[in-house]
Amino acid sequence: MTFASWPTGGAISFGGDYNPEQWPREVWQEDVALMREAGVNLVSVGIFSWGLIEVAEGEFDFSWLDEVLDLLHAHGIAVDLGTPTASPPAWFFATYPQARVVAKDGTVLGFGSRGMASPSSPEYRAAAVRIASRLAARYAHHPAVVMWHVHNEYGAPVGEDFSQNAVVAFREWLRARYESLDALNAAWGTAFWGQHYTDWAHVSPPHPTPTVGNPAQKLDFARFCDHQLRACYIAERDAIRAHATQPITTNFMANECPTTDLFAWAREVDVVSNDHYLTAADERNHVGLALAADLTRSVAGGAPWILMEHSTSAVNWQPRNVAKRAGEMARNSLAHLARGADGILFFQWRASRSGAEKFHSAMLPHVGTSSRVWREVVELGGHLRALAPVRGARVRAQAAILWDAESFWAQDLEWRPSVDVRHKERVRAYYERLWRDGVTVDFVHPSQDLSGYRLVVAPASYLLRQADADNLTRYVEDGGTLLVSFFSAVVDEHDAVHAGGYLAPLRDALGVEVEEFLPLRAGDSATVRWAPEGGEPVTLTADVWQDDLVLHGAQVVGTYVDGPAAGGPAITRHAHGAGQGWYVSTRLGIDELAPVLAAVYTDAGLEPSGLPLDVEVVTRHGDGEDFVVAINHTADEVKVDLGAGQELLGATTVTGTVVIPAGSVAVLRTTTPQLGGDGQP
Amino acid sequence: MTFASWPTGGAISFGGDYNPEQWPREVWQEDVALMREAGVNLVSVGIFSWGLIEVAEGEFDFSWLDEVLDLLHAHGIAVDLGTPTASPPAWFFATYPQARVVAKDGTVLGFGSRGMASPSSPEYRAAAVRIASRLAARYAHHPAVVMWHVHNEYGAPVGEDFSQNAVVAFREWLRARYESLDALNAAWGTAFWGQHYTDWAHVSPPHPTPTVGNPAQKLDFARFCDHQLRACYIAERDAIRAHATQPITTNFMANECPTTDLFAWAREVDVVSNDHYLTAADERNHVGLALAADLTRSVAGGAPWILMEHSTSAVNWQPRNVAKRAGEMARNSLAHLARGADGILFFQWRASRSGAEKFHSAMLPHVGTSSRVWREVVELGGHLRALAPVRGARVRAQAAILWDAESFWAQDLEWRPSVDVRHKERVRAYYERLWRDGVTVDFVHPSQDLSGYRLVVAPASYLLRQADADNLTRYVEDGGTLLVSFFSAVVDEHDAVHAGGYLAPLRDALGVEVEEFLPLRAGDSATVRWAPEGGEPVTLTADVWQDDLVLHGAQVVGTYVDGPAAGGPAITRHAHGAGQGWYVSTRLGIDELAPVLAAVYTDAGLEPSGLPLDVEVVTRHGDGEDFVVAINHTADEVKVDLGAGQELLGATTVTGTVVIPAGSVAVLRTTTPQLGGDGQP
Amino acid sequence: MTFASWPTGGAISFGGDYNPEQWPREVWQEDVALMREAGVNLVSVGIFSWGLIEVAEGEFDFSWLDEVLDLLHAHGIAVDLGTPTASPPAWFFATYPQARVVAKDGTVLGFGSRGMASPSSPEYRAAAVRIASRLAARYAHHPAVVMWHVHNEYGAPVGEDFSQNAVVAFREWLRARYESLDALNAAWGTAFWGQHYTDWAHVSPPHPTPTVGNPAQKLDFARFCDHQLRACYIAERDAIRAHATQPITTNFMANECPTTDLFAWAREVDVVSNDHYLTAADERNHVGLALAADLTRSVAGGAPWILMEHSTSAVNWQPRNVAKRAGEMARNSLAHLARGADGILFFQWRASRSGAEKFHSAMLPHVGTSSRVWREVVELGGHLRALAPVRGARVRAQAAILWDAESFWAQDLEWRPSVDVRHKERVRAYYERLWRDGVTVDFVHPSQDLSGYRLVVAPASYLLRQADADNLTRYVEDGGTLLVSFFSAVVDEHDAVHAGGYLAPLRDALGVEVEEFLPLRAGDSATVRWAPEGGEPVTLTADVWQDDLVLHGAQVVGTYVDGPAAGGPAITRHAHGAGQGWYVSTRLGIDELAPVLAAVYTDAGLEPSGLPLDVEVVTRHGDGEDFVVAINHTADEVKVDLGAGQELLGATTVTGTVVIPAGSVAVLRTTTPQLGGDGQP
Repeated sequence: MTFASWPTGGAISFGGDYNPEQWPREVWQEDVALMREAGVNLVSVGIFSWGLIEVAEGEFDFSWLDEVLDLLHAHGIAVDLGTPTASPPAWFFATYPQARVVAKDGTVLGFGSRGMASPSSPEYRAAAVRIASRLAARYAHHPAVVMWHVHNEYGAPVGEDFSQNAVVAFREWLRARYESLDALNAAWGTAFWGQHYTDWAHVSPPHPTPTVGNPAQKLDFARFCDHQLRACYIAERDAIRAHATQPITTNFMANECPTTDLFAWAREVDVVSNDHYLTAADERNHVGLALAADLTRSVAGGAPWILMEHSTSAVNWQPRNVAKRAGEMARNSLAHLARGADGILFFQWRASRSGAEKFHSAMLPHVGTSSRVWREVVELGGHLRALAPVRGARVRAQAAILWDAESFWAQDLEWRPSVDVRHKERVRAYYERLWRDGVTVDFVHPSQDLSGYRLVVAPASYLLRQADADNLTRYVEDGGTLLVSFFSAVVDEHDAVHAGGYLAPLRDALGVEVEEFLPLRAGDSATVRWAPEGGEPVTLTADVWQDDLVLHGAQVVGTYVDGPAAGGPAITRHAHGAGQGWYVSTRLGIDELAPVLAAVYTDAGLEPSGLPLDVEVVTRHGDGEDFVVAINHTADEVKVDLGAGQELLGATTVTGTVVIPAGSVAVLRTTTPQLGGDGQP
Repeated sequence: MTFASWPTGGAISFGGDYNPEQWPREVWQEDVALMREAGVNLVSVGIFSWGLIEVAEGEFDFSWLDEVLDLLHAHGIAVDLGTPTASPPAWFFATYPQARVVAKDGTVLGFGSRGMASPSSPEYRAAAVRIASRLAARYAHHPAVVMWHVHNEYGAPVGEDFSQNAVVAFREWLRARYESLDALNAAWGTAFWGQHYTDWAHVSPPHPTPTVGNPAQKLDFARFCDHQLRACYIAERDAIRAHATQPITTNFMANECPTTDLFAWAREVDVVSNDHYLTAADERNHVGLALAADLTRSVAGGAPWILMEHSTSAVNWQPRNVAKRAGEMARNSLAHLARGADGILFFQWRASRSGAEKFHSAMLPHVGTSSRVWREVVELGGHLRALAPVRGARVRAQAAILWDAESFWAQDLEWRPSVDVRHKERVRAYYERLWRDGVTVDFVHPSQDLSGYRLVVAPASYLLRQADADNLTRYVEDGGTLLVSFFSAVVDEHDAVHAGGYLAPLRDALGVEVEEFLPLRAGDSATVRWAPEGGEPVTLTADVWQDDLVLHGAQVVGTYVDGPAAGGPAITRHAHGAGQGWYVSTRLGIDELAPVLAAVYTDAGLEPSGLPLDVEVVTRHGDGEDFVVAINHTADEVKVDLGAGQELLGATTVTGTVVIPAGSVAVLRTTTPQLGGDGQP
Repeated sequence: MTFASWPTGGAISFGGDYNPEQWPREVWQEDVALMREAGVNLVSVGIFSWGLIEVAEGEFDFSWLDEVLDLLHAHGIAVDLGTPTASPPAWFFATYPQARVVAKDGTVLGFGSRGMASPSSPEYRAAAVRIASRLAARYAHHPAVVMWHVHNEYGAPVGEDFSQNAVVAFREWLRARYESLDALNAAWGTAFWGQHYTDWAHVSPPHPTPTVGNPAQKLDFARFCDHQLRACYIAERDAIRAHATQPITTNFMANECPTTDLFAWAREVDVVSNDHYLTAADERNHVGLALAADLTRSVAGGAPWILMEHSTSAVNWQPRNVAKRAGEMARNSLAHLARGADGILFFQWRASRSGAEKFHSAMLPHVGTSSRVWREVVELGGHLRALAPVRGARVRAQAAILWDAESFWAQDLEWRPSVDVRHKERVRAYYERLWRDGVTVDFVHPSQDLSGYRLVVAPASYLLRQADADNLTRYVEDGGTLLVSFFSAVVDEHDAVHAGGYLAPLRDALGVEVEEFLPLRAGDSATVRWAPEGGEPVTLTADVWQDDLVLHGAQVVGTYVDGPAAGGPAITRHAHGAGQGWYVSTRLGIDELAPVLAAVYTDAGLEPSGLPLDVEVVTRHGDGEDFVVAINHTADEVKVDLGAGQELLGATTVTGTVVIPAGSVAVLRTTTPQLGGDGQP
């Protein structure tokens, strides 16, 4: 069964999580009336309702859920029906205490918050399949149900599990992966520190050890943990599919849930959906939002996706939960839409009076409809109705950033050369540089076909398989422009240093090798003299890292003025085949990256947008018409030339320059082909 | 049995903990001789002596204690006899390992420091009652014994306990509290995150969970823990009372032991006693001392209380144990006396050579009598003899600060809007403002009769029951002045947001409601334009928080110049009935609070003392005469007009202005009625 | 059996850890060829090979090790043969799970990194002795084997163990130490906090307790842990000695492994060997290196020692692993040699591709022989050949610094007067002052004969037995100069405050006593007026601490200008017998110590070298000739007058001043007697 999308009658989906079980029935009537007022057309139901449906093991009460679905359907509101397996009932944990998750330090994590049981527990697997199956059997043909929502945010809050169930399952998983102990001993490098195995029964998850444990074992355990979660999803999905034909999804957390490999997960869902929450402490968190949206679209292979959860205002779980200001919710929502979302949903419909998330904002706040938030929710509903034509239009990117969860897992292990090197920071820095330059990007796995991109950036490819390195090298040979940041291509899939040394797999593509890493002391910075061909030399400030680089054909474009590599090459450019391989051997901030990327764009045939900082323009390409979303994140009015067309939010005709007030958004519908993210009309 | 006080022959009690078991018998003789030299008239004995009295289970050796009590009595020193249940013997833990306390993470806390067994352990309860009973039976009529000292600092170091005994007792306590699971499910809001209970046997203490647990469950667990400790106290108290007629106390830790609800405890003791230690890192720790003393007097209902422990100089358990300087011990002691203490005792008489507290100062230091500390102890003894007339005189306060341990417990749970909001900080800030203004305060529970106060301040009333809010509203109606700080009246007794939104229960009294919380980012500050009626506008710097306030009749006295609520109201004043309700929606420092409180005092008919900073004056009102204690905490001589009377420390007659040297204290006995803390002569 | 040294054919030993089991056989051939190229003459083999030798319990496969030893011998490379007991095999832990180490919090530390089993486990002890015995039996007469290397870095990463095996063994150890419970109760001061013991079965290691545990118990547990590790070593050593006649060593970690008492360990080895790694964050880590080398020589009683491990460049386990720069490895190596090392070895020969230490530098880096590191390794091999005549020459020191592991253990317990007082910081500060002044020092235990030294410095003698204090007093009486820093002579061997108060045991030697400790608040500093006899007064800045000092005959040389002891004595000098006792009651930085030490040198008859900062000169005194090692740690060329002789590295003749380029080393062989560390030719 394949799904291009999900049924919505041509509208952008709009709504949120709906938890009627927290409220008396009289509130339900008010809910559906207000949903209609706001234009809500899709709600997610039942996500935490296991204990109220399966009231004792094998004993089900669907009556209240019947009533809720009928009520919603009667008011024209579609349902994304959840399986409640993210929070097993009290009776489950009492009956199957062995199914509880065990933390690395041995702490048993039991009932009383949320968070699934051990993903390796056969009892949990059976119970989850049973409830999913019963729900699917009952509601497969309910007219309200347009989609299935399995579980909730797999990997959060439970990623790792060290229970006895996990021990047994890890061994089975390893046997399937390696077949022989010789292969496992080789892959894990057990000759180091005397860790040779002679019996599968001696192999375990990376339990506490006197000092740092085997990194290859830990990397495999990360793979295993991700696999086990996905196996839980697949089991529920298949149980639903046995009864139902609607598309099935599970809500991802994009770049915020490090234990899941999104590319692998996306292959298993019918529709990709994502939850996104702003990082309050980040004053430029609209850039992080764009990154998450681009990543979500990328793992969806460019297909439309749903923003399953975001917030109308503050969340409740950060140290300081900064509220959104007027217009910010709309900007956030339309920024997701600009980058491919065809559904804008919130956690949650009505703020909960009790529980751990009572201070999380909602579509309907504690104070009710006499509130800024409610007024803006209603307004957003109107905007989304006006944007219905955007549905199905696609974003096209001309640049790509490498994203490989396994590399991130490996890099995050202990005893790396410097604690100041963080993959997340480098990915964001390069992403933000391209974002500021108006270059739309996809995220790609290094094994993917890259031929469609003019530029590929590798900000953090610590673990790079030889085959993937070869893929990158071919990309350059064939005319691509590749930019690689330091501490890349260091290890193979077993966290073993590549034969030949650091960066050796990319030596042909980059024309350099790394003789030695030269991390800087805390707080130290260094100067790079940036002298591109024909350009005026400038000095750039860098920190955290230098390499002792050996040239194998590359041209030196930046040189260390000081620091441990003083006088040596800092930034290089290498002609290989029809393309260019760039290497940046130090940490440059977002501003310092500007001249470097400008030169790289020239090689790649890209041009920065030239828009003022924090004016974001993205195009969705439809059938014979394009939709240009322009978001003004600044505090001043801006004028942007988007060409001729119809502005959908104000329903006005635009012939050239459009004026966007401070904090506002314009969406231009135009039949003039736009130079999109791929540089093509 | 009721006690106005404890027998002391009309003197202020003076002495400390006495642990003769740590010393050979020849030292005992020196001890009593030196006690007499210093004027010691009361010592606490036997607090950590369980194992030396009950040498094996049920086998008692009272011989050494007989000898100690006889010796003390022979030298005219009265005894506050301790029950040693804060430190069960090695044999107890070996026999009853299940009685050990278990920490939340599962760590079993055993023998080898101090700290009681599980307060829910039946074995511990029985053993504690047995030793208390045996001591009472033996010494009820010993002429030295004038008071009983149950246990030591309940709640420190053991507050919470997650042992199996606690699990069982928590369920019993909940059944008694809620009667039905329906009621528990409703109170805990278990519909959120699927936490519905169908069996009492599934309910547990808040054990570790994958993410944040149920807050109402945690709040009830905090109540339960406090209850269990108090039940231990009551069991021992009743066991003593079966034999003995002397007053019974247990030493509190006032504001430093957050797990105990002092108002509830104070109802169970005959005499309130308190331990107080300066926070060395706090350069203004004399203000914290005053706060603790006022709180102690308040929970005692204004009755005389005993300072059971403080230190002659440094303590040993802080990061940097700053020693007291010359005169500081006397200032501390007399500040306690000024605020109601009729006994000044120390931990401890003689410094211990061994153990965890060997670096704690004592009345008799390691170096002996040739020391500043000893000389000052002897001098203090003389001062206290001169102050005997003060005994029984009472402090009267005209302002009150709300104090509700349950609110503090609730506010301290996870996932609040901002980690920068701390109840303790706000209570201290408002307290210190009033302290600097010379306004003496009581601490009151929000359910108390408030009619005696001109001003009531609520610095941190996050949890406020509707009935208590109604009490505050009536207080304003009846002419009171109420000042409420932000993040108040947010939740009810189950940590559920009040229907109608934040601050709704106080809407009538304050004339405002809070539409949304607007926490600031770390380090951000904002400006408030303070423009009181008829006054000159000034700007105040605030931080941490703003509210999005909606006016319902209140007058705006302060306006946000910037920050997320820029242009909105910051500080409001509302005429309700015969009184005024003030609301301050941001965090102002102690200096910034000055103009605000000045306006509030005007409403309340109060007048600041006008004394120089750090000159502290408090009056104790006696029978037809008053005692004015004036403490000069500054490094300069000050002149204060205390009226006419007799200065008791110097034994001089004063007719008006008295000169107080730097760091010194004067106590004026006067028959001219003083305007006390209640503004009445 | 006694050993002056180890057999090396007169050469300085050069090499490293060699782990051929991590590589295929074809690499072995390359290894021995490159070893010869570099001049390697000694490698350590088999340190982590248990599981590859004893492939199942009692089943041995020596074939690969036979081959390795034969191959090395065939190429003239000697072997330091390891016992692999630092990393028991997987089968061992599977068979004997009770032998695993248990951390204080109860976490069981199992297989999968490195780190021995419980040192108190009889099963581990038996298995370790068996493998050691089998190795010794097989290779005792192998011509390659010149030394035995028991275990690896005892105490790292396993120091403490709280397993049931440890509980049992601790009780046995205590019974042997105290004989009676009365003695234990007295030593531990169990009368404090009611900790009296009536049964040996109630005594345990310091398991978790509600608050701070008994300090004397903790101090004894530290002694016990060290004892158990040493007992493991002795058992293996004796098993080897039953078969073999070569010297036996185990590699220490000098000042970096706080759980071992090096003086006690050194008595048990035939040859002292040490591992040393630079602290990357310390910009002056060459001083830390000198300290470690001097300490190693000191515990070896002045005999030649082996630097068993250091690094060619970066390590991998620090937060930021800074690489060594050109010449730094040579300076480090020759600094060790200057201070007594007759062998310079590295961890490790060839960088490991897998495992936890893949980013640790090696003699042969990942990138191979085309590297700076390899070129410098080969060059160093050449230098060491030229330095063969240095072998056996000895360093002589005229000053000594007290070092007592038991005192450090005691000082590190909880609840000391100030967290800012750290013994390690004070030892380093005084050491560095003397290092900068060119005064070579030995480290000595306070019980040692001190008569050979002109100056003895006690930077951190918190625990000082009365007998050792008497030793210091006699040293002064006999003409020595003693300098004692604050927080010294506080407690006896049971962590009990000395009768008479702080510093009482040294009152005769120093002429002062401490009435009270006066720790400063965080960040506070104070001024000392330093006014030595006849000198110009200067002001010094101090922090962390002051004492309230009482003079008993001492002369005040420095006075507190401010701080809690303002006006009181800060630094004193006391003539006692034929010597002088100095006391410094505050924390002075290295620069501020300069004038104080200058005055102390005058008393001691010492003279600072007057060399530029960071030019290090140390002399090894041989048979009728001296070797002066001069290291230029600065970035500029320096000229130093070393007298006439032959410069061994450049093979040039020197007649006076020698020019040492920036970062370089000169070694002068001279028959002109040098004024060595002992001020004697």
